Amino acid sequence: MPDVFKRLLLGRPVRSDRRPRALLPKRVAMPVFASDAVSSVAYAPDEIILTLALAGLVATTVSPWVGLAVVVVMVTVIASYRQNVRAYPSGGGNYEVASVNLGPRGGLTVASALLVDYVLTVAVAVAAGAQYAASAIPGLRGNEVAFALVIIAGLVLMNLRGVRESGVLFAIPLYLYVGAVGLTAVVGLVRWATGTLPQAASAQYDLAPVPSYEQGLIGALGVFLVLRAFASGSAALTGIEAVSSGVPAFREPKARNAATTLTLVGVVSGFLLLSILFLARATGVRFVDDPATQLLHDGAPVGEAYVQDPVVGQLATAVFTGVPWAAPLVAVTAVLILVLAANTAFNGFPVLGSILARDGWMPRQLHTRGDRMALSNGIVALGVAAAMLVWVFDASVTALIPLYTIGVFVSFSMSQLGMLRHWARHLRTEPDARERARMRRSRAINGFGLGLTTTVLVVVVVTKLTHGAWVAILAMVVAFVLMTGIRRHYDRVGVELAVDVDAPATRALPSRVHAIVLVSHLHLPAVRAVAYARASRPSVLEAVTVGVDADDVAALRADWERTGLPVPLKVLDSPYREIVRPVLGYVRSIRRESPRDLVVVYIPEYVVGHWWEALLHNQSAIRLKSRLLFMPGVIVASVPWQLDSSARTRALAEHLDARPLPGDVRRGLTPPQGPTPLQGADR
Amino acid sequence: MPDVFKRLLLGRPVRSDRRPRALLPKRVAMPVFASDAVSSVAYAPDEIILTLALAGLVATTVSPWVGLAVVVVMVTVIASYRQNVRAYPSGGGNYEVASVNLGPRGGLTVASALLVDYVLTVAVAVAAGAQYAASAIPGLRGNEVAFALVIIAGLVLMNLRGVRESGVLFAIPLYLYVGAVGLTAVVGLVRWATGTLPQAASAQYDLAPVPSYEQGLIGALGVFLVLRAFASGSAALTGIEAVSSGVPAFREPKARNAATTLTLVGVVSGFLLLSILFLARATGVRFVDDPATQLLHDGAPVGEAYVQDPVVGQLATAVFTGVPWAAPLVAVTAVLILVLAANTAFNGFPVLGSILARDGWMPRQLHTRGDRMALSNGIVALGVAAAMLVWVFDASVTALIPLYTIGVFVSFSMSQLGMLRHWARHLRTEPDARERARMRRSRAINGFGLGLTTTVLVVVVVTKLTHGAWVAILAMVVAFVLMTGIRRHYDRVGVELAVDVDAPATRALPSRVHAIVLVSHLHLPAVRAVAYARASRPSVLEAVTVGVDADDVAALRADWERTGLPVPLKVLDSPYREIVRPVLGYVRSIRRESPRDLVVVYIPEYVVGHWWEALLHNQSAIRLKSRLLFMPGVIVASVPWQLDSSARTRALAEHLDARPLPGDVRRGLTPPQGPTPLQGADR
Repeated sequence: MPDVFKRLLLGRPVRSDRRPRALLPKRVAMPVFASDAVSSVAYAPDEIILTLALAGLVATTVSPWVGLAVVVVMVTVIASYRQNVRAYPSGGGNYEVASVNLGPRGGLTVASALLVDYVLTVAVAVAAGAQYAASAIPGLRGNEVAFALVIIAGLVLMNLRGVRESGVLFAIPLYLYVGAVGLTAVVGLVRWATGTLPQAASAQYDLAPVPSYEQGLIGALGVFLVLRAFASGSAALTGIEAVSSGVPAFREPKARNAATTLTLVGVVSGFLLLSILFLARATGVRFVDDPATQLLHDGAPVGEAYVQDPVVGQLATAVFTGVPWAAPLVAVTAVLILVLAANTAFNGFPVLGSILARDGWMPRQLHTRGDRMALSNGIVALGVAAAMLVWVFDASVTALIPLYTIGVFVSFSMSQLGMLRHWARHLRTEPDARERARMRRSRAINGFGLGLTTTVLVVVVVTKLTHGAWVAILAMVVAFVLMTGIRRHYDRVGVELAVDVDAPATRALPSRVHAIVLVSHLHLPAVRAVAYARASRPSVLEAVTVGVDADDVAALRADWERTGLPVPLKVLDSPYREIVRPVLGYVRSIRRESPRDLVVVYIPEYVVGHWWEALLHNQSAIRLKSRLLFMPGVIVASVPWQLDSSARTRALAEHLDARPLPGDVRRGLTPPQGPTPLQGADR
Repeated sequence: MPDVFKRLLLGRPVRSDRRPRALLPKRVAMPVFASDAVSSVAYAPDEIILTLALAGLVATTVSPWVGLAVVVVMVTVIASYRQNVRAYPSGGGNYEVASVNLGPRGGLTVASALLVDYVLTVAVAVAAGAQYAASAIPGLRGNEVAFALVIIAGLVLMNLRGVRESGVLFAIPLYLYVGAVGLTAVVGLVRWATGTLPQAASAQYDLAPVPSYEQGLIGALGVFLVLRAFASGSAALTGIEAVSSGVPAFREPKARNAATTLTLVGVVSGFLLLSILFLARATGVRFVDDPATQLLHDGAPVGEAYVQDPVVGQLATAVFTGVPWAAPLVAVTAVLILVLAANTAFNGFPVLGSILARDGWMPRQLHTRGDRMALSNGIVALGVAAAMLVWVFDASVTALIPLYTIGVFVSFSMSQLGMLRHWARHLRTEPDARERARMRRSRAINGFGLGLTTTVLVVVVVTKLTHGAWVAILAMVVAFVLMTGIRRHYDRVGVELAVDVDAPATRALPSRVHAIVLVSHLHLPAVRAVAYARASRPSVLEAVTVGVDADDVAALRADWERTGLPVPLKVLDSPYREIVRPVLGYVRSIRRESPRDLVVVYIPEYVVGHWWEALLHNQSAIRLKSRLLFMPGVIVASVPWQLDSSARTRALAEHLDARPLPGDVRRGLTPPQGPTPLQGADR
């Protein structure tokens, strides 16, 4: 049954050799990899303004300058990453740069940071999308969490289906969004230059003073608040590393095209961010964390009834005076691009998880592809984690933002540090003077980038630690510790299990086989188990029962003799009415007497069709099996007896298995060889 | 680890042959089996008074008459049960009477009713105990639910330990309670006769009129309310059937002693119930459901601060004027006997469950005794069910009472009906005239009992259906349907599995054994699995791997050749990256080609020491095993590889298993026989 559902939801399986690997032209690659970076323009200005608004109206006028600082960092990071994509075009991204140059622990640090950040990308983008959606569709107001969870579920499903980035489909939202917000910006700037820019609707409100900020941006507290606004705004830098991981998907010359895309992303994001902040100040847009109490109308709070639109929406309404659908239109394009941005994480997270699993840092399941070729386990894990975040933080962008950006700047800084080492290594061996000059220039850029991103990282940590950043840091530490533990486990097991080809132990066979058939009543499953055990002709064969009730034992013994089965029946005494311990003790005594013997324990098992039937059978068998597994030199052989009720389940399973898919079992990678008779050839 | 906890909590296991079977003299048997019946005096009067109090002060003066009606029913039921215990002294109780005389469905109806009622006995007794405890210890007020749950947990633990009813320990609370309440009654009656009985403290309050009862006990509504009070009061009859199930534990003459005990129970309960109700009226005790709003002081509600003691407590305070510890003392003895009453259900429920399991109506697990000889599964089931009831109904006796008594009267009526059939059957064959006269008299008593209990059942159902009785009825129906389903399942399986001794199929052996070793990498578990498979010398042996990744397959093939294992390696193609389906398909193809072959699938398995390690291994193996079990003619052989991390778990388990208990494995019920070599003897 679950299989039928799966097919309906996800479609038919996809063959391994049909994996499409279309290379992307720039006009398509840009939307695919840039949507994350560009989409942050949809919430970064809002966060800058609302942080500054804590210190009053005058403080918000600083916002364009904060935006400028963000853009300066952005330009630096993009310049640095242009070096990265050229030096590491394989798509490993920051994880590869750090691993190669800073060693496994460096790589793992970056990986932890990136994993946490991918989760936050989804959570923040979807939460912001829900806010935009609610601003366009009033019916959604108050249901943002549900809306966000539905979007995440949809993204999980879509990615499990393994929809390939079909260029056009993904390009449209980005171009629509850039077009809509860009037009707002350009028309707004023209109207400002011509002196016809009107005030925003919210300009009529005053801001309520917030305790400890009554004096505005004064002293250390004021500086701290500006830094906090900057830290929030630097969320606009997230998504840049997505381009560096995407290099292999670009057309040749891959690295150059990726670098150009990076520049484009920087230009577009920077322009949009600065214009929005500038126009927001020019039109007097008010944007605060809690409008009901922070916005004052004639000295009194506006109350719960007031609806605060996002900054871009307010701008669109002001700029396109008399066009009532301008703001909803911008909101719809914002929702689309934010969903697209969340989708970027659904590309990045599973791939990173798969690389980590390949390297032994994560469970192997993250490396296996599902039957639609998607890295299903990674997709589901990301979806679940993001949904939990959205639910816990009530889909509030403002609450989630402090957790964000830390991971980004950890990985920025680590990768810049890695690049410095990279250039130092290459400079040691490079003879060509021009090439050395180019490398020195690149090194200077990465060095400057390192300085700046480290500074920003410190600012972000200091200003936001108590606002929730500790959650993100804790998550990174947990991820790091977890991955180290998993790797240590796999390493230890690998050493333990390595086969020494030349050791004689590899070829030693047990001297004899001692077979035991466990029997409780004389019914068909037991008879079948005895027959199967006899068929394998063990050196010693005996049926064993545990004597809990003397009457039952007598009845079994009588039945046994009546049936005339040519196998002796041994009764183990169990004065404490246990089933498992007497059997274990008996097996142990056999092992002790003849340690080189192989003991095979045949257990008749019922196979039932309904889960509740399982409660009525097999309880002792399950416990016994789990304990026998701990004994060396013992094989546990389940001899199933399929109850009639299991026939329907079996038939359904066979029907589903038998669906005609190309390349089924009988077409092997090897030419089909018949089973080889071993009788007498061996031993 | 769980085993160590278990030992600490429950003590050392008890040998089957050490089951104590002490027979009880009357003075001990009475407390053991009578506590349930006598303890209901602790809450039945309160429920009668508070129900009548809905119709105002005048209505409560009817309460002794309602009590008298209850006592009349009680006398009838006890007279009837004196017939039951003589006719069916084997301890099967109502279930046996109904099964024998009314057929399995009749027995099952009684069993359903009794199971539900046992759960309610625990819930009601413990809830009432919590109320008494709170009246003695003010700190418990508001924590009644927690107190009740702790008591239930304690009872579960005590019964899992299997504390035998040590007479004296169980006799003390009953004699204390009967002594305390009896003394209150006698002194109260003497003071009433001498005209020195004071008014109760609560007599000063007036009762607030309740909507639709402003006129008192007028018309149909009034009659209905009196009937409802009677239905609540008939909770005093619960526990009588406990004596009838306890007959085998009495000393000879068992039946007569049990009958005498029944009479004693009736006399004591009846006297206490009537005196309490009479004295409560005489002293003007006020007892209402919600004192905060229903009690009026000078016309205004007394509010939340008022603490309402149980009726017996109020009586003790009034009767023993100037003795402040009289009420707390009565409360403490009430708590003790109520806990003892709940304990009765812990004796009855598991035994009934065990009998039902023996007859195939319940899962077999209810029939197995734990290592302390207790019917552990039944005890835990009862505890969990009662705890849930207490939790859902907030430990409120008034809320639980409507659910109670229905089951009791269903089983009363069914067993009386059964007795009528019993006498009819015996009268048909009995020649002796004196004996026939005795039987006719007994039949008349049972007939009268049937009429009365059926009437009460109708009254109870009609007056309480909407007050929660539907929950109990629903639970009985669910239990009935469930048990019928389980029996049908066991019956069907029994037919399916019956061995036809003479059928040749019983002795047919599979013609050849086709062994498959599943391999993913060439590491030690796989090498061991191959060696073990070779040791069992199958007709055909091949190693099989599923080719998901071409590079992995090539590496495995190279390793395989390098190691020189004398077993061919077959690669199953898996274009859809599945592990399970290709293997199933291959096994199916072998079965199709040679249906008489036995296929043994050897699966190397990791045995890990920590639960989280299990997440990193074996995931495919588990799914594969569960699917292979559905295939006829296939044995699944797990070849465990014990990882080093499992050594500690194994060592601990072996240490616990190896504890020196008498009668361990090597002392068999059978004289020890060495394993019999079968080599060549067979086939």
